[in-house]
Amino acid sequence: MSLDTVKIAVLGCGTVGSQVVRLLAERGGDYAARCGAHVEVSGIAVRDIDAPRPDWIDRDKLTVDADALIDDADIVIELIGGIEPARTWVLRALRAGATVVTGNKALLASHGPELHDAARESGASLYFEAAVAGAVPVVYGLRESLAGDRVEGVLGIVNGTTNYILDQMATHGWSYDEALARAQELGYAEADPTADVDGLDAAAKCAILASLAFHTRVGIDDVAVEGVRSITPADIAAAKRAGGVIKLLAHARRVRTDEGEAVSVHVAPTLVSTANPLASVSGAFNAVVIDAEAAGRLMFYGQGAGGVQTASAVLSDVVAAATHIAHGGSAPRESAYESLPILPASQVTGEFQLRFAVPDRTGVLAEIAGIFAAHGISIAALEQTCEDDTESTLTLTTHHSTRSAIDAALDELTHTDSVTRVIAVMMREA
Amino acid sequence: MSLDTVKIAVLGCGTVGSQVVRLLAERGGDYAARCGAHVEVSGIAVRDIDAPRPDWIDRDKLTVDADALIDDADIVIELIGGIEPARTWVLRALRAGATVVTGNKALLASHGPELHDAARESGASLYFEAAVAGAVPVVYGLRESLAGDRVEGVLGIVNGTTNYILDQMATHGWSYDEALARAQELGYAEADPTADVDGLDAAAKCAILASLAFHTRVGIDDVAVEGVRSITPADIAAAKRAGGVIKLLAHARRVRTDEGEAVSVHVAPTLVSTANPLASVSGAFNAVVIDAEAAGRLMFYGQGAGGVQTASAVLSDVVAAATHIAHGGSAPRESAYESLPILPASQVTGEFQLRFAVPDRTGVLAEIAGIFAAHGISIAALEQTCEDDTESTLTLTTHHSTRSAIDAALDELTHTDSVTRVIAVMMREA
Repeated sequence: MSLDTVKIAVLGCGTVGSQVVRLLAERGGDYAARCGAHVEVSGIAVRDIDAPRPDWIDRDKLTVDADALIDDADIVIELIGGIEPARTWVLRALRAGATVVTGNKALLASHGPELHDAARESGASLYFEAAVAGAVPVVYGLRESLAGDRVEGVLGIVNGTTNYILDQMATHGWSYDEALARAQELGYAEADPTADVDGLDAAAKCAILASLAFHTRVGIDDVAVEGVRSITPADIAAAKRAGGVIKLLAHARRVRTDEGEAVSVHVAPTLVSTANPLASVSGAFNAVVIDAEAAGRLMFYGQGAGGVQTASAVLSDVVAAATHIAHGGSAPRESAYESLPILPASQVTGEFQLRFAVPDRTGVLAEIAGIFAAHGISIAALEQTCEDDTESTLTLTTHHSTRSAIDAALDELTHTDSVTRVIAVMMREA
Repeated sequence: MSLDTVKIAVLGCGTVGSQVVRLLAERGGDYAARCGAHVEVSGIAVRDIDAPRPDWIDRDKLTVDADALIDDADIVIELIGGIEPARTWVLRALRAGATVVTGNKALLASHGPELHDAARESGASLYFEAAVAGAVPVVYGLRESLAGDRVEGVLGIVNGTTNYILDQMATHGWSYDEALARAQELGYAEADPTADVDGLDAAAKCAILASLAFHTRVGIDDVAVEGVRSITPADIAAAKRAGGVIKLLAHARRVRTDEGEAVSVHVAPTLVSTANPLASVSGAFNAVVIDAEAAGRLMFYGQGAGGVQTASAVLSDVVAAATHIAHGGSAPRESAYESLPILPASQVTGEFQLRFAVPDRTGVLAEIAGIFAAHGISIAALEQTCEDDTESTLTLTTHHSTRSAIDAALDELTHTDSVTRVIAVMMREA
């Protein structure tokens, strides 16, 4: 039988887009055999036709007329990033009934509902494996592999830049600034590292993961975020003493409140016990741990960034999309039927490690412990280490408590003379 | 709109089947929201209606008439295991156009082509996530998440029983027999442990993984198998000295030969370097590492057995199947277009660690090294440790070589007086 040809428009020809174009050409025979259809790049929309490109890019396929390209495509691969013009182009494609494959986490985390609605109305498919954790197939994992289960929590290292920085601080004893400079030298961090180091990139991915895990619309603004700029070598040393390492984690959890179930989502530097499989995920690798009612604990691990690695995720979506076009079927529809409420940042719960500078006199521990007890916070461990004759460091580890209770206790403590200074407040994961 | 009802026949009501039935009842509302169809167990086929069952099993649904149940079902879940009557029933369902969801690795690894052909002829769907590695979604991983990539190798801990036994031997210094007895006490090993400890269970999973990874029909008889019965505490101590641990691994690899590409598949106890993420997979956990051309290295990790955990995998397939029934689409078809030749066991290649007892005299090392060189085997490391005045142990580590070259060198060596005894021959993974 003769196979149909599926026309693909590629929007953007950067590190990921150029690899997608290369693999579509080199592996076209494989894709045809797998999809039952020929996949063919009909054009590549770029801003500047004359910019330097890898030699495998066919310059005749470059165009600045994205609209014309989209209108003639069966599948539109959006890899330009950012909100506009990506949003307008993706909506144009979906409204025309074309399948969209995107790696744009910021767009999904800020305009996901609009995109999903457009897809539903026209019957178009929307794929986004590449938007979270590069080559790690965690979108498939949540949308399909766990479709028969009930997810309780998702915990992930989803930003390679900060993982690399924290890793280097721990390995070499570097300051945050030294580790950032090294990451920038090696190209692991951008000149303006804000999106990575302030946790915004991780927050967008956290929102996408939480949406899938809890069948609830979660946007980036729902995610409480804390980045890694303020992490010090002393924090890392304290983590090591506590038998752990510091990782920037995306936390998404189903929690029970007095009003029923809710979703807790936040990104924060977290003291991870070395017994946790996430503790040994180093360098630019990503890993996502999913706890589900029936499956128990699963982990997905792999390369979280890189042009060719992310291209693998894009192309898995392209093969699924082309197969559906050839044989029927569609991408899983948005599933938001649970519509759980999302807890405000102050209601985030977890275990915390707090470090204080305290004066070296009797009665300090008793007063501090008393204030925590009064705020309903249960203490798991207390350790005092002497720095000099007049000041000690007190490390306090809590059982599960809410961030607001912790903050209230801290507020009261700083009005006593039992605490000289709050050194750090950090979440913990066993 | 009113939803369709999808009728499900469950064949088998053991540890996995009973959990599937429970979750279908308890989570029915979730499944309806996710699939766009009600899923309803129409009956459960069992051998003995009167056997004791968990209290959530509705006895009115039990039947011994599997044929009637199958003929009336939209989805048939086969969880009886073994070849017959599973094969006959699965074929009956597929030929009638019903979707089959199975966890039966033995059936797939020995009659996979027959099942896939039947599915293709009638247009039926065949799902089998639960057949490999319990809750770990590695069938999805290979069939869908890596559909746009080119898999180079799959390396997996896919048998929890042997992983537990090897773990206990390493932790407590136990013999194989002691560790097996403990595993049997705890219910991790069966009274007749043959399928696990001789590597047959792992070989079936290896065949399934290799089929998916290389788009080639691979059956259990294609897989060279070595089990764990002969592993000694001395082997484990030698592994520790070499910076590793022993794991029973399923190896499936795309290899280049003079005639082109081929598939190498085998199951063998393997010395795994502690730097490899598989080294830290302990107890009854399973993990599968996939190396792909674009994605690089991915790892999937989770619980490889257990009724409720495996039920999660079954139910993900049920949700996919019911969604397709409600909205169109089908399971990915068998993809065997690459049809690569499969190497015979003697052509298995890898790095090896060999240990010999050698007499304590000069010239021994030179003679041994000379024989390996003559067989074209490149030596990576040689270490001699003295046991007493007259005998030493020589540990020899090779670079990549074929099993047949190793065997030929060993054969020649045992005809010299440079080797008293071959203690162990083991594969290595960095």
